[in-house]
Amino acid sequence: MDTTQLLDLLHDYKQGNISDETMLQSLQDNQGFEDIGFAKIDHDRAKRQGFPEVIYCAGKTNEQIADIFAHLYQKSEQNIIASRATLENYQAVLAKVKDAKYDEFARIIYVNRDNMPIDDKRFILVMTAGTSDIPVAKEAGLTAQLMGNKVQYCFDVGVAGIHRLLSKKDLIDKANVIIVAAGMEGALASVVGGLANKPVIAVPTSVGYGASFHGLTALLSMLNSCAAGVAVMNIDNGFGAGRLASMINHMR
Amino acid sequence: MDTTQLLDLLHDYKQGNISDETMLQSLQDNQGFEDIGFAKIDHDRAKRQGFPEVIYCAGKTNEQIADIFAHLYQKSEQNIIASRATLENYQAVLAKVKDAKYDEFARIIYVNRDNMPIDDKRFILVMTAGTSDIPVAKEAGLTAQLMGNKVQYCFDVGVAGIHRLLSKKDLIDKANVIIVAAGMEGALASVVGGLANKPVIAVPTSVGYGASFHGLTALLSMLNSCAAGVAVMNIDNGFGAGRLASMINHMR
Amino acid sequence: MDTTQLLDLLHDYKQGNISDETMLQSLQDNQGFEDIGFAKIDHDRAKRQGFPEVIYCAGKTNEQIADIFAHLYQKSEQNIIASRATLENYQAVLAKVKDAKYDEFARIIYVNRDNMPIDDKRFILVMTAGTSDIPVAKEAGLTAQLMGNKVQYCFDVGVAGIHRLLSKKDLIDKANVIIVAAGMEGALASVVGGLANKPVIAVPTSVGYGASFHGLTALLSMLNSCAAGVAVMNIDNGFGAGRLASMINHMR
Amino acid sequence: MDTTQLLDLLHDYKQGNISDETMLQSLQDNQGFEDIGFAKIDHDRAKRQGFPEVIYCAGKTNEQIADIFAHLYQKSEQNIIASRATLENYQAVLAKVKDAKYDEFARIIYVNRDNMPIDDKRFILVMTAGTSDIPVAKEAGLTAQLMGNKVQYCFDVGVAGIHRLLSKKDLIDKANVIIVAAGMEGALASVVGGLANKPVIAVPTSVGYGASFHGLTALLSMLNSCAAGVAVMNIDNGFGAGRLASMINHMR
Amino acid sequence: MDTTQLLDLLHDYKQGNISDETMLQSLQDNQGFEDIGFAKIDHDRAKRQGFPEVIYCAGKTNEQIADIFAHLYQKSEQNIIASRATLENYQAVLAKVKDAKYDEFARIIYVNRDNMPIDDKRFILVMTAGTSDIPVAKEAGLTAQLMGNKVQYCFDVGVAGIHRLLSKKDLIDKANVIIVAAGMEGALASVVGGLANKPVIAVPTSVGYGASFHGLTALLSMLNSCAAGVAVMNIDNGFGAGRLASMINHMR
Amino acid sequence: MDTTQLLDLLHDYKQGNISDETMLQSLQDNQGFEDIGFAKIDHDRAKRQGFPEVIYCAGKTNEQIADIFAHLYQKSEQNIIASRATLENYQAVLAKVKDAKYDEFARIIYVNRDNMPIDDKRFILVMTAGTSDIPVAKEAGLTAQLMGNKVQYCFDVGVAGIHRLLSKKDLIDKANVIIVAAGMEGALASVVGGLANKPVIAVPTSVGYGASFHGLTALLSMLNSCAAGVAVMNIDNGFGAGRLASMINHMR
Amino acid sequence: MDTTQLLDLLHDYKQGNISDETMLQSLQDNQGFEDIGFAKIDHDRAKRQGFPEVIYCAGKTNEQIADIFAHLYQKSEQNIIASRATLENYQAVLAKVKDAKYDEFARIIYVNRDNMPIDDKRFILVMTAGTSDIPVAKEAGLTAQLMGNKVQYCFDVGVAGIHRLLSKKDLIDKANVIIVAAGMEGALASVVGGLANKPVIAVPTSVGYGASFHGLTALLSMLNSCAAGVAVMNIDNGFGAGRLASMINHMR
Amino acid sequence: MDTTQLLDLLHDYKQGNISDETMLQSLQDNQGFEDIGFAKIDHDRAKRQGFPEVIYCAGKTNEQIADIFAHLYQKSEQNIIASRATLENYQAVLAKVKDAKYDEFARIIYVNRDNMPIDDKRFILVMTAGTSDIPVAKEAGLTAQLMGNKVQYCFDVGVAGIHRLLSKKDLIDKANVIIVAAGMEGALASVVGGLANKPVIAVPTSVGYGASFHGLTALLSMLNSCAAGVAVMNIDNGFGAGRLASMINHMR
Repeated sequence: MDTTQLLDLLHDYKQGNISDETMLQSLQDNQGFEDIGFAKIDHDRAKRQGFPEVIYCAGKTNEQIADIFAHLYQKSEQNIIASRATLENYQAVLAKVKDAKYDEFARIIYVNRDNMPIDDKRFILVMTAGTSDIPVAKEAGLTAQLMGNKVQYCFDVGVAGIHRLLSKKDLIDKANVIIVAAGMEGALASVVGGLANKPVIAVPTSVGYGASFHGLTALLSMLNSCAAGVAVMNIDNGFGAGRLASMINHMR
Repeated sequence: MDTTQLLDLLHDYKQGNISDETMLQSLQDNQGFEDIGFAKIDHDRAKRQGFPEVIYCAGKTNEQIADIFAHLYQKSEQNIIASRATLENYQAVLAKVKDAKYDEFARIIYVNRDNMPIDDKRFILVMTAGTSDIPVAKEAGLTAQLMGNKVQYCFDVGVAGIHRLLSKKDLIDKANVIIVAAGMEGALASVVGGLANKPVIAVPTSVGYGASFHGLTALLSMLNSCAAGVAVMNIDNGFGAGRLASMINHMR
Repeated sequence: MDTTQLLDLLHDYKQGNISDETMLQSLQDNQGFEDIGFAKIDHDRAKRQGFPEVIYCAGKTNEQIADIFAHLYQKSEQNIIASRATLENYQAVLAKVKDAKYDEFARIIYVNRDNMPIDDKRFILVMTAGTSDIPVAKEAGLTAQLMGNKVQYCFDVGVAGIHRLLSKKDLIDKANVIIVAAGMEGALASVVGGLANKPVIAVPTSVGYGASFHGLTALLSMLNSCAAGVAVMNIDNGFGAGRLASMINHMR
Repeated sequence: MDTTQLLDLLHDYKQGNISDETMLQSLQDNQGFEDIGFAKIDHDRAKRQGFPEVIYCAGKTNEQIADIFAHLYQKSEQNIIASRATLENYQAVLAKVKDAKYDEFARIIYVNRDNMPIDDKRFILVMTAGTSDIPVAKEAGLTAQLMGNKVQYCFDVGVAGIHRLLSKKDLIDKANVIIVAAGMEGALASVVGGLANKPVIAVPTSVGYGASFHGLTALLSMLNSCAAGVAVMNIDNGFGAGRLASMINHMR
Repeated sequence: MDTTQLLDLLHDYKQGNISDETMLQSLQDNQGFEDIGFAKIDHDRAKRQGFPEVIYCAGKTNEQIADIFAHLYQKSEQNIIASRATLENYQAVLAKVKDAKYDEFARIIYVNRDNMPIDDKRFILVMTAGTSDIPVAKEAGLTAQLMGNKVQYCFDVGVAGIHRLLSKKDLIDKANVIIVAAGMEGALASVVGGLANKPVIAVPTSVGYGASFHGLTALLSMLNSCAAGVAVMNIDNGFGAGRLASMINHMR
Repeated sequence: MDTTQLLDLLHDYKQGNISDETMLQSLQDNQGFEDIGFAKIDHDRAKRQGFPEVIYCAGKTNEQIADIFAHLYQKSEQNIIASRATLENYQAVLAKVKDAKYDEFARIIYVNRDNMPIDDKRFILVMTAGTSDIPVAKEAGLTAQLMGNKVQYCFDVGVAGIHRLLSKKDLIDKANVIIVAAGMEGALASVVGGLANKPVIAVPTSVGYGASFHGLTALLSMLNSCAAGVAVMNIDNGFGAGRLASMINHMR
Repeated sequence: MDTTQLLDLLHDYKQGNISDETMLQSLQDNQGFEDIGFAKIDHDRAKRQGFPEVIYCAGKTNEQIADIFAHLYQKSEQNIIASRATLENYQAVLAKVKDAKYDEFARIIYVNRDNMPIDDKRFILVMTAGTSDIPVAKEAGLTAQLMGNKVQYCFDVGVAGIHRLLSKKDLIDKANVIIVAAGMEGALASVVGGLANKPVIAVPTSVGYGASFHGLTALLSMLNSCAAGVAVMNIDNGFGAGRLASMINHMR
Repeated sequence: MDTTQLLDLLHDYKQGNISDETMLQSLQDNQGFEDIGFAKIDHDRAKRQGFPEVIYCAGKTNEQIADIFAHLYQKSEQNIIASRATLENYQAVLAKVKDAKYDEFARIIYVNRDNMPIDDKRFILVMTAGTSDIPVAKEAGLTAQLMGNKVQYCFDVGVAGIHRLLSKKDLIDKANVIIVAAGMEGALASVVGGLANKPVIAVPTSVGYGASFHGLTALLSMLNSCAAGVAVMNIDNGFGAGRLASMINHMR
């Protein structure tokens, strides 16, 4: 409720159109979410953040996921996303929401209502250092697409063969926002960060072994990037990168 | 044996009612536990701490768990709790103790003798940041209930949608003690700690991925809470939180 | 503003006693804090949490500390605490608040207005494993005293000489809440936790060397205490322990 | 050299206006930086990234800093920034560049040529959890200002007193990009991330003690934020946050 | 070859009883081990260290283990030990060495030739904090027994019920060497170390969860024991503890 | 394209033999890799680094591995290596490349074209501390062999029986480069480093348990070797050690 | 009080020689330590552990150290040790105890009463890997000497020059117990452990830089020693090593 | 003593030219080092490893350093190096060895006897990512020079401005061995490793702040380099890199 709405409400109350009880309720209980016991579904989030609540599936039961998904589906007219989803999660959702799709690679259950305007000229470029980083890149890319962005991919351009990356300089120049997914030492983020005059979002991946410590090395490396202004996400957090890239890409 | 009891014993001895051997035995062997080889069952604990020894099942064999449970069941008139129990553990216990119940969600085997007075006005509030934190919350809640407390739950009120939490301000104000279970960055503990004028017990959960490091991040976050006076438990230690909350809730 | 106050306000507004602007202001700006630029002084905290905001001095300039202290002193009638304070900080405060005292050991600047009722029968026991842990214990103890609690100390009863601790069993039995400050391996918390049927608040200290890692070992040890229900604070956080102990000790 | 420039060069060469040697030189030596021995000054960066190279002073001698600063000053017409600078560094620079200013709080030496157009409507909001986080916030803010952005500050709105933050909801709604600097548990980033529908850049600070591990806890906490899309920088990296915020704020 | 043997050899050589080739061979090739390709079996170890080489099974194939075991069995007249062995490893060994036994609890394959004199008066006491620590204790105990020591066990005397431990003070007083196996916070080592005037060997176990970090907390705790002179082994290293205890117990 | 080639190209262009478009293409698109979508196959690497790109199988699908392998096989006349390969990966490759072999121990799929000259006098010595380290040693050795080197192995010469190692002093003296694979405390690298007057490449292995932390201890130990000039690789990185040893062994 | 003493006391009491009060006092207050407020001086320790309490100076004030030292000096007839002492600590002690000596190298204040019988044939060998490890070795050696042991030193025999160590094989063979102090990668402990058939006590030192992490690497390395039965102490804990070596060396 | 020398000795002994005592002495005492109490100076190392022992100054007293330096100076005819030396160390050395020089930047005391043949065609290239990494680079470079190598430097070519590095491709192609010193995220090692067909030795430096953790991030990053065959040294270990580079550069 913004100032104007609040003022209207007050005037209505003053004129006696609203009882004391209703007025108190309106002021105190203006919640914007739906309480279904094990979850408080945040229907207000689309208004507050420009996109509905996204379901994080890990640790939830199939029933919980399907229930939340169905509630979001009914209350919202926007796209729906459930991340870190298994095939089994999907089957539970599908039983309740026939429109639900599943991208096994990106591990995302979604409903794509095709009602979002997309600016073809401003695209998000999603790059990976290696072929093994592609799943994280796909999670980022699909998230961004479902949030109304054009996405381009550029895979396997890690710094061990820098000429592969340099040959894509043109793509880097044209992109509006860049996501870099890289495991091992994660150096790609620094090099791209040095080449680009636009926001670079670095996603460390858990690709690697030994002293990669499941992505910790790539994470630390990206946080210490000598290229100023590289933003860093949690390990394997493709979803978060896609979400942030979408917010930036929509700025005018 | 307190001072009065000891004095009585001494007088009895002085009057010759008690032999040297018995007297020595009484002074030295006043142990308060039962030795069954692989375990020393601490029957004295109920007197010392207000509740019988609780069985930590992980790493014990089915036979060991069932034996200890049966001994506690026979020697005590209070409720019995075995935490971190599997269904298989339960089946072994059930073969020996017909009254035993199992809560698969909280992973607790228990006997509830319904003989504990409960103060309805003072309740323990158990909150979670997300739906995935519920198992830990349930471990805490069931523990507290079996120890004679009224418990209320409030799930999925994490700080990413702060209005969900604020709408529960009333519940926070009425609670006597609050348990907060949260994974990821565990920020809920700080916000609740700032809102409440009562003890807040924070339980980091292993919910999350990547740099959550199986609950370490939530743990560190809660230890550094800017809200003074938040007590922290081990990761996923719902049992400990329930135990501490019960002790505090019983204070008069 | 609770429901009754809000209703009164609404009635006043309805009767035309309050203008639209004032009403909006009242509803939106019901802040409870004072904005002095570099700080938002939380005068509402005493109401919300039972004690005014406490100033954490580290990282603040002398001027900032003295200004905040002076504002709290004028607006509140309760005791004032500034923790982690240096002598230099104190001198800056003293120039503005003549009543301010300094405990160099506990590193606390305070004003003690002696207007807080103290229940002599319920005391907080502050124990240390060694002599070197005393500063942290004093920070905890002085905090609790300034918040209206009776405090008793018991120093140097670490587990390497368990008879020293056992000889204090009586004190443990009589205390209402116990704070244990210990460095090195921090084992005292577990032993006291096993002996006591009341809340034990464990404060790891940075006493030790080598693999004590500035208190990390004691912290981890206390979090894994085999005595159920031990609450853990941040390393060297005597203030937090005193604050929590005070909240528990005031429960009826 | 873009495609058009390269084609012009080729045509000139084909028409015999350019010798083989010159042509080879042009193709191979099109470097865009100046080599002064201990440093390769990257004059091309302004073109490539929209702002000249920034000098990171730590670990460089006064002479090195002053030389690099002077070279940048002569070759560029934009603002100059040297971060992590001491007063002593500044004095060395001042001897060579009379226009140089120093902000001791933000630890930045700079030249502000006042020739950058600033969009007054789009401002960057820089928030801190506490008063002790202000230096990092100032580093971020001054960086952004020198890069042509309007900046607003909002200090000491940490989550332990959530009403202080909520009273600033209006400012959050109006800002174009938000920087959050917080130490200890860093929870402010999550709460702001949940409230805002715009990019939030989180900067963990080294404020805290014990298990804050010099900012590591705040860093991990921010990386695991339950609010999707929060970008994280290195500990105390105000400069990087300002740089990224500027890039985002300039997007159209 | 000691000095006397070397002198004898030289004299033989001088008298022409030994050829140049043989003499060179004797001086250079006095190896003391058997090379079977994938392993160099150290037959000299029994002479050098008082007990034959022990086979560490993890990471070796069944064939490798059986071959090494068989070689040791043939060349040595002492007991044979293979630690960290699976049942499958045992079956492979049994096919080659009919005398081999397996203790599934201690995970040890062994041959016990019953030819080692045992001093009944000097025994090694193996204590555990909990029932879950018994496997590690058994690995230590069986190792010590096979090396010719009398062993006594005392399980489940952790510090959360200190009276259980104190009731065993007599056993502690009579033991010659003490091994303490404990997980979680490992505090038992410190308390026993304080009670005993004999060497205490602490073995951290991986028993616990969350911030026990698979035994790291117990390890750190034991290294920082406030009881001077506690020796620490690797996590779950019952074998090493048994080996060291045996060496100490055999000292005269 | 080196200077001579570039000059030739320019001359051709100047003489009109090459169109503007072709010339631009030649200058800009001189890539040296093949783009097959999910991978950019680096055919230029053999020229740049003396050996074709090696396929890291972990995290790639069978199809991806087989496709990249087949492309390398067709475009290169040198040996082909795919590391960290499973049997299943191999079967997919074999369906496309009949010449492919698989070493299950070293986890390498390879094509050995037997067209590489090998200098029999200069061999690489691969040593292991224990039998369990052999797989890593084999990965290193097979890699080096496929890159055209003679390899000798010396297993199970760890420092607990230093005479086993000293008996191999001759082999150490004759080797041209030495690879040391060791887990646990990794001390073999230091001892060999002290004995040898040639490059020693240390590969920590994940052999061990408890505080070996999956190879971290061996890694740290080798990095701190008191023998100067020991080069260290990632944990279990036999491939990298073989690659580096090959480069050094080929130096003239 | 052992059983005989207790029986005597009971008989005395029964015969009326002892009042109720005295009897209760005797049974409850048989403490064995002296309470001087900030410390409980453990006079019973000499009886319990064979040597009086040792003062750990770090974190204590000069006054506290001097007071405890003086109390121990008066109550005990054995040698007195205060470890981790500064010269300033010593001066405070000297003012109260004229016999006190100070070894600045070992950082120990001590009183040596020369009344301890020493077995010349059984000596403790203290070895170091480098010259920089000598201070820790001296702390260990002086501690052992003051506890009645003959000590021999052997410095700078690290494994990078293994022949230096092997030339001391004779000394290793003759020693009764061996202490090894080593920093960096700490490999000396493993090699000595493999050569010796007696207890080896490993003390990691903080000598080194970078990834030695102030002794952590040496500590981890020693815990993972492939030589079975090496006992490990905390980083730089020479005192503990000397204490343990003394206990072992006194065994008969 | 090699086989021939040993045979000669045996013959001399057989012919009675050598007494039993002398013979024993020769066989046992052929040590190759000089024992000066606090150090065993390894004069054999030049023969064994091609260069005399190098003195690591940290943790040694001025007297110790000067004594060892003087002994090496007298016994050897090669260059002498003392690393990690302070100016104060140098003054102590200079008092004993007039030829000693000091490079304050590289922190090395040395004697350069100018008697080492240097191959001008094969040079070692030492590169740094930034200006702040130069001291480590100098330690590496001076070490290599004193060991008889030609060295070239290339500073400040970090990956944030990749064109600076690419412009030095020619230098990379001509070098025989490359040392890369880099702090922060250390990505330069990977990029150079991908460009070069020769051994690359990576030295992480402690340059950086926050999550660079004093060089740990650069270390981990380099260990996980996606460019195969990069050798890694300890943090700031310029000396080790120079030593290894020298060994490789001298290979024929």
